[in-house]
Amino acid sequence: MRLRNVKGAQDKIENSPYVIQNYKQYKGHFQDVFQNEHPIDLEIGMGKGNFIIGKAKQNPHINFIGIEKYPSVLVRAIEKLEEEIPNLRFICMDAKEIEEVFDKEIDKIYLNFSDPWPKKKHALRRLTSPIFLKKYESIFKDDYQIEMKTDNANLFAYSLMTLSQAGYIYSFVTLDLWKEDISNIPTEYEMKFGSLGMPIYKLEVKRQANDKYLKNRSQK
Amino acid sequence: MRLRNVKGAQDKIENSPYVIQNYKQYKGHFQDVFQNEHPIDLEIGMGKGNFIIGKAKQNPHINFIGIEKYPSVLVRAIEKLEEEIPNLRFICMDAKEIEEVFDKEIDKIYLNFSDPWPKKKHALRRLTSPIFLKKYESIFKDDYQIEMKTDNANLFAYSLMTLSQAGYIYSFVTLDLWKEDISNIPTEYEMKFGSLGMPIYKLEVKRQANDKYLKNRSQK
Repeated sequence: MRLRNVKGAQDKIENSPYVIQNYKQYKGHFQDVFQNEHPIDLEIGMGKGNFIIGKAKQNPHINFIGIEKYPSVLVRAIEKLEEEIPNLRFICMDAKEIEEVFDKEIDKIYLNFSDPWPKKKHALRRLTSPIFLKKYESIFKDDYQIEMKTDNANLFAYSLMTLSQAGYIYSFVTLDLWKEDISNIPTEYEMKFGSLGMPIYKLEVKRQANDKYLKNRSQK
Repeated sequence: MRLRNVKGAQDKIENSPYVIQNYKQYKGHFQDVFQNEHPIDLEIGMGKGNFIIGKAKQNPHINFIGIEKYPSVLVRAIEKLEEEIPNLRFICMDAKEIEEVFDKEIDKIYLNFSDPWPKKKHALRRLTSPIFLKKYESIFKDDYQIEMKTDNANLFAYSLMTLSQAGYIYSFVTLDLWKEDISNIPTEYEMKFGSLGMPIYKLEVKRQANDKYLKNRSQK
């Protein structure tokens, strides 16, 4: 994503009630932020927020946390919020430090149009690399659930392999989401490419948390 | 595939040394056909044979059996054979009866451009439906290995799900085979579509035969 310096982005982020400041203090207790016991879903790399804002409005009984590395991008999501959405929060952080932030409290992870890191030597930076899948293990509460959308064929093929090898089972796969699911909430990026007729790929996977057999298997 | 009546097809099939007649008598003993102990790979729906003939030439230490339902199609493969290929045989049969023909003797199954059966009500006729995956279990010798190519996005997505749910693990996936694998042997059908720039999808999966945990799981 092309990044512009957005004037006052840092200021807006620090003063938004939607942004969790000092987020490390909530590790293992993010339900305190929402003051209820609803499940917490996490979008890693939420970008300008269209997807997670739509999801939060549509599912008032699920709490949504979106994380985004770049203040200049996150501020666009903050600027979009008009009405109050009590089940939505953002964190400005790098996905790399996710294990230090969450602990056994996430129900589902959403990965939308993540950086494909096309070069092989950068493959481990992909958000579905074995390194990241290992990190996610410690943040899930019960069953592990991941939903992923991308327009990048190589990233999709790579993820199909890494997730399968880590013991995840596919519950949904499509190579043309826009033709198949009219209830889909697109991201900003997706709207550009989907509306040009480019295929959008989506997968949904699950892995049982108590699946010791698969745990051993995925650690090989 | 559009079928023409090919004059004398039945005759040619009955008289070809490449076609195994009375094939049911070899159940559990197909190595007798080749008179060696090399592994046996099976292509289900071999069509006009370009793929399996190429594979057999390339891999003299693997035996290849191609099965094809339609005599008018199989005869085209027979007509292609000029030099002798000792590790290649064909059977004119319906994939539905596969359990009655083979028994714990197949190393790998190839499914190339199988009929996509696009209507949901026909989904169980697809060669990667749970019904067929169940049939394949009894014909594999050791580990279960399947390789599949298709240009049909829906069939590919469907297969990604059914194979995963049956306990198979992905070792290779691509959404654009022609860009990725220059050693690929195309089928006749594939040549038409691949050369037009249409994406060809491919997957390779494995499942351990002694994987009792996954066996129980896939039977649920």
